Amino acid sequence: MTSYLVGLIGSGIGPSLSPALHEREARHLGLHYVYRLIDLDDLGLAAGDAGELVRTARRLGYDGLNITHPCKQTVIPHLDDLSGDAATLGAVNTVVFEGERAIGHNTDWTGFAESFARGLPDAPTGRIVQLGAGGAGAAVAHALLTLGADEIAVVDAVPARAQALAGRLAARFGTGRARPAGQADLAEVLPRADGLVHATPTGMAHHPGTPLPADLLHPGLWVADIVYRPLETDLLRHARALGCRTLDGGGMVVFQAAHAFHLFTGREPDTERMLAHLADLITT
Amino acid sequence: MTSYLVGLIGSGIGPSLSPALHEREARHLGLHYVYRLIDLDDLGLAAGDAGELVRTARRLGYDGLNITHPCKQTVIPHLDDLSGDAATLGAVNTVVFEGERAIGHNTDWTGFAESFARGLPDAPTGRIVQLGAGGAGAAVAHALLTLGADEIAVVDAVPARAQALAGRLAARFGTGRARPAGQADLAEVLPRADGLVHATPTGMAHHPGTPLPADLLHPGLWVADIVYRPLETDLLRHARALGCRTLDGGGMVVFQAAHAFHLFTGREPDTERMLAHLADLITT
Repeated sequence: MTSYLVGLIGSGIGPSLSPALHEREARHLGLHYVYRLIDLDDLGLAAGDAGELVRTARRLGYDGLNITHPCKQTVIPHLDDLSGDAATLGAVNTVVFEGERAIGHNTDWTGFAESFARGLPDAPTGRIVQLGAGGAGAAVAHALLTLGADEIAVVDAVPARAQALAGRLAARFGTGRARPAGQADLAEVLPRADGLVHATPTGMAHHPGTPLPADLLHPGLWVADIVYRPLETDLLRHARALGCRTLDGGGMVVFQAAHAFHLFTGREPDTERMLAHLADLITT
Repeated sequence: MTSYLVGLIGSGIGPSLSPALHEREARHLGLHYVYRLIDLDDLGLAAGDAGELVRTARRLGYDGLNITHPCKQTVIPHLDDLSGDAATLGAVNTVVFEGERAIGHNTDWTGFAESFARGLPDAPTGRIVQLGAGGAGAAVAHALLTLGADEIAVVDAVPARAQALAGRLAARFGTGRARPAGQADLAEVLPRADGLVHATPTGMAHHPGTPLPADLLHPGLWVADIVYRPLETDLLRHARALGCRTLDGGGMVVFQAAHAFHLFTGREPDTERMLAHLADLITT
């Protein structure tokens, strides 16, 4: 009888929905599957200990791990190989133990890509404005450019971070496909944009508010948020009131989890069922 | 959603049936439950590392552990508390993490006791001869004396080991309730005995044969074997041919597992189902 033991390594992950999402879907598929939280804070460890934790987890019977903040980069030197995407992004959110080897993957970007393709099919991707140039922003922009977006303007409260991400994207996808922009430029670039992607924590339950003045939105924009607690952020509510097509953050959560689940088990989870489960977890 | 992560720490445990027994019963009860083997040999560790392994397993999300050879004693100094039985026996086969504490239990003796009471109800326990004074023998003799046996003669290929166990039992249960005997004494003591318990490896698939000359058996004896691979040992086959009441080793395996399962989960497993499962695992 096959059983699966996986976990999440990160800091402050107590509220994570991953154990419930993974374990319930596994039950539907008839799999023995346990998903454990391995919280650096509880263990008195730091980001630099991620590699040792991965080795230890493997020795104690883990089949694989998800990796989150602040370990997505620090774990890399301790892995035996990376998928091409994880190497390109310089970030790993999933580690699979295959025989003697630990392989790093990145399902954050594929998770956003599938969520976008499913939730905003045929949305125009000529000009996109993205708010947030952190780790999530890097995955989201990579997904949009991979899906064929012509040009992304990257905005961040820290201009150097927007510059750095835009520089890496331009080097990877071609000059002109990504450029940094300032918050003061939003009033100029948004009227000409097809879509707005939000990849900062603003709008989360503990960071209420909108990440930009709501009067900068217009009905011609689609608006995608990666915040998923709540599923309807202030940003999405304003956008919907204007008639914008919108995409909430639940899809990225579910598809990154589903893709990791597939890497761990080889099985195809039912993502519609997982989306319904996520909505249930968030609203109850 | 509650899930359970437990494991077995020991040496050379690859063939253990515990993962299958635990996980299948958990599935019947609708529990998320994974049971992992943590083999010292695979990890390049020694018996003295058991305590550190227990601590590490707990940090990585384990809810409890079974402990087997060669760690049942070495783990004890690393636990926060012991059940009364485990302290008395000086052996732990089950560790449960309760809050910040690691508590050691012994379900080997309770497993044999329940198997005996179920499989040989009303068997006379005036005089019992026991072959084998190792760890399993210590648990079995403790069970029989706790169930009310009047007197056990303990025989071992190493006379000092028989003397040591008999001495401990006599100190615990009263002078005269246990005494060492030599293999040469079997021809004298067996004709007057009510029952024979076998607690050595002889008769296992890799240790074929009978642990004593078959002509020493007689129809007035009940015969209990703790070997369970195969379930019908040469000893039990000879005993059954003579018309003896017999007890195979499957019950001890199942009831020690069931008692540990209860300690881990608080749930009552279906032991008849587990016995059927064990028979299925051994014969297929």
